[in-house]
Amino acid sequence: MKVACIGMGNVGRSWAIVFARAGYKVAVWDISRANAERSLSLAADTLKLLEPSAEAADAVLRRISIEADLAAAVEGAAWVQESAAEAEDIKRSLFAEIDSAADPAAILASSTSAIPGSRFMQGLPGAARCLIAHPVNPPHLIPLVELCGTPETSDVTIKSARAFMTGVGQRPILLKREIEGFVLNRLQWALMSEALHLVGEGYCSAEDVDLVMTSGLARRWALFGPLAVAHLNASAGIEGYFDVLSEAFGRVQKSLRTDYPVTPELVLGIHGDMIEQMPQESIPEFQKLRDKRVQTLRQFLDTLSA
Amino acid sequence: MKVACIGMGNVGRSWAIVFARAGYKVAVWDISRANAERSLSLAADTLKLLEPSAEAADAVLRRISIEADLAAAVEGAAWVQESAAEAEDIKRSLFAEIDSAADPAAILASSTSAIPGSRFMQGLPGAARCLIAHPVNPPHLIPLVELCGTPETSDVTIKSARAFMTGVGQRPILLKREIEGFVLNRLQWALMSEALHLVGEGYCSAEDVDLVMTSGLARRWALFGPLAVAHLNASAGIEGYFDVLSEAFGRVQKSLRTDYPVTPELVLGIHGDMIEQMPQESIPEFQKLRDKRVQTLRQFLDTLSA
Repeated sequence: MKVACIGMGNVGRSWAIVFARAGYKVAVWDISRANAERSLSLAADTLKLLEPSAEAADAVLRRISIEADLAAAVEGAAWVQESAAEAEDIKRSLFAEIDSAADPAAILASSTSAIPGSRFMQGLPGAARCLIAHPVNPPHLIPLVELCGTPETSDVTIKSARAFMTGVGQRPILLKREIEGFVLNRLQWALMSEALHLVGEGYCSAEDVDLVMTSGLARRWALFGPLAVAHLNASAGIEGYFDVLSEAFGRVQKSLRTDYPVTPELVLGIHGDMIEQMPQESIPEFQKLRDKRVQTLRQFLDTLSA
Repeated sequence: MKVACIGMGNVGRSWAIVFARAGYKVAVWDISRANAERSLSLAADTLKLLEPSAEAADAVLRRISIEADLAAAVEGAAWVQESAAEAEDIKRSLFAEIDSAADPAAILASSTSAIPGSRFMQGLPGAARCLIAHPVNPPHLIPLVELCGTPETSDVTIKSARAFMTGVGQRPILLKREIEGFVLNRLQWALMSEALHLVGEGYCSAEDVDLVMTSGLARRWALFGPLAVAHLNASAGIEGYFDVLSEAFGRVQKSLRTDYPVTPELVLGIHGDMIEQMPQESIPEFQKLRDKRVQTLRQFLDTLSA
């Protein structure tokens, strides 16, 4: 079984690791051959850290191969994952090319986080087999993937996509209609907007916003989602939660500022605070630390629910 | 050193455990003696699960004693933590009583999550030593505590409160001005409002909202807060994050519905979905599971940062 990865930036590379670890042959293609080669060498470094042994890492890596042209990459693939630059015109022409070259039974997915699929998939001969599969970066460490069809995507495509993503170890959720930002970025940015409001208006420091999450909220949310947390708040379930809290909730809702403007001054101020904890030149080090911790946390959470 | 806990519901009981585990003598008082006794017996059960041995649990428990009247409970205490019912008039009369009975050097804190301190602390002779110390429930499992003074609270009170809370193993953050819902509930409810919007308008299921958190967002947020996550998104830090994403962010901001109305129909619908996963009669079991997992996660996170 073969999968094709089109576009080999950070996201495409991580998908290639996901599919190859799951046992698929992975054909990768990038508009720049040099970029594909560089990306494969970074994938090799990642696999050395992820896999239990050098032999295991090599075995996964050997399943990934660079193809010289897009048609050769998608030929015979059961799944094509596009992770090119976030530009509507690039994705539109890539999808036309992929659709005409891919096997009739192949499913064609885009990693876009910001462009609704109907803007570049609609009207293609194979539009019924096209959908968004938006990962959390990087997908080889974080299992969530958001599936979202266009009005032309068939039910069977959605069903097969869920099964395929579950099969490669990801956790798919389904958007029933297109919406800007899907679910993850909407939830993330609703919270981020209020965080900017609190820091911007001087209610608390940027560091304290982060502490509220790491030492507070996220300790429940990593285990039970926000609705389940509300449901378990008292013995009357989420209905009881809103019975008791709806007045306070309504008062807070009225003063939330999710339209808070992201001014350059505000961003620079927060950037300055962050730089004190994590200087610019240490960001790559901190990214490695983050990835290592996210991976350890995943193993921990898998143990918990096993 | 002595601490007093006034009000012995779930929050008061959990605070008593925090202070007693930290080595303080804890005098507890509740308007109902029977309630205080019941609460102490529940604390004994909790300590049996928390502490490494029955002897250790007994040693902590022996530091907690019930007092027959409020004045006796607060006498000689360096810190008084009020966790009575969430009603402004009850808290106002309790704080007047506590302020007149407590040692001059004592700090008086309220656990309120919804009532700004200035509504019941202001004008007291000891207003300068009064502040909010709002925990995440239960504080013996989740370390975050939000400190917020009134305009009358002295700087020295805030400083001592930070040191005291850090000393008993909590992680304090500081609100520099009063605001409805403090930081934690504002962030939580900004996200919750958008979750209600997405489920209410049929974009996704309640279960999928929770999965986005447990299998996605919270896996970063348990380790790095939302601003740190943005800072580590690319090598240009949080400034680069907003450079690249401000357009998509702005578009999502415009369509966020943090004013989404919490109708009884919406809440009942979500309650029905939650009940399928966690039936009403099993809620106490799931609460125990949640607490056990939150505790295990705390130990895991402590190991990571050690």
